[in-house]
Amino acid sequence: MKLLIAVVQDKDSNRLIEALGEGNFKTTKLASTGGFLKEGNTTLMIGCDDDYVEDALDIIRDNCSQREQMVAPISPMGGNADSYIPRPVKVEVGGATVFVLPVESFFQF
Amino acid sequence: MKLLIAVVQDKDSNRLIEALGEGNFKTTKLASTGGFLKEGNTTLMIGCDDDYVEDALDIIRDNCSQREQMVAPISPMGGNADSYIPRPVKVEVGGATVFVLPVESFFQF
Amino acid sequence: MKLLIAVVQDKDSNRLIEALGEGNFKTTKLASTGGFLKEGNTTLMIGCDDDYVEDALDIIRDNCSQREQMVAPISPMGGNADSYIPRPVKVEVGGATVFVLPVESFFQF
Ligand code: NI
Ligand code: NI
Ligand code: NI
Repeated sequence: MKLLIAVVQDKDSNRLIEALGEGNFKTTKLASTGGFLKEGNTTLMIGCDDDYVEDALDIIRDNCSQREQMVAPISPMGGNADSYIPRPVKVEVGGATVFVLPVESFFQF
Repeated sequence: MKLLIAVVQDKDSNRLIEALGEGNFKTTKLASTGGFLKEGNTTLMIGCDDDYVEDALDIIRDNCSQREQMVAPISPMGGNADSYIPRPVKVEVGGATVFVLPVESFFQF
Repeated sequence: MKLLIAVVQDKDSNRLIEALGEGNFKTTKLASTGGFLKEGNTTLMIGCDDDYVEDALDIIRDNCSQREQMVAPISPMGGNADSYIPRPVKVEVGGATVFVLPVESFFQF
């Protein structure tokens, strides 16, 4: 048995929890983190048998990997709107940090 | 030393924390979980010496085991109140999931 | 690799997160705990290589150790203000509890 502790972006967390549920993984979501280094992150705990760790990691990778997204910029206030051509800009979104912890024993009551 | 991570129902958590405190266990409550799979759950961390793991598990079992509870149904709106005989219904409440994690070292400052 | 789980006082947590960041430690802050035993505490998760555990512990010790603080007492309401000489009182503040957990594997996506 292992306990996976995954820190992911808030915006990816609902999709990830749904995908993990479809894979029959039980997930516990801890309330959002508030550290200034990790603004907007969510911590998930996922308990699973050793044989399923790879599957769980694969689901996390598929739903949360860091990726580039094109974002429409906000047009400049008070500029000359006629001559302004907005170009979408690339931003990095997503990303996941996962710790796989050994579990000595596990109980359900 | 072990670190117990227990996920229990919100409604059982205060009673459990009190019982653990009476048993001299130090408990840290993480803010409520919000995953759709685990609505209304609380995560507790309990650090204890190896010899006391059984005692802690016993307190969790005694206070949080899944059990049936009779609940009075809400009488139907607009029905004929005279002929309606409300029957209590059974619902499953409680339940606890506990991970026992090995601790390599422990410090208090 | 190790995962440090540190429970510290809310009032020390921002200074600690800043100090850990200056030491290049990645920190995840879990939402404030609310257990009656630990009112006003914050739980931090810090992942670090084995060689840096001592450094992380040192930063926690330096920023969160239990210590005495002089606090100005509130002058008694309705007392004779002329004859009342307020004396600062010592209170215990701070303190940290740290669990060092073994990590089996670690991933970043
Ligand atoms: Ni895949
Ligand atoms: Ni018992
Ligand atoms: Ni020092």
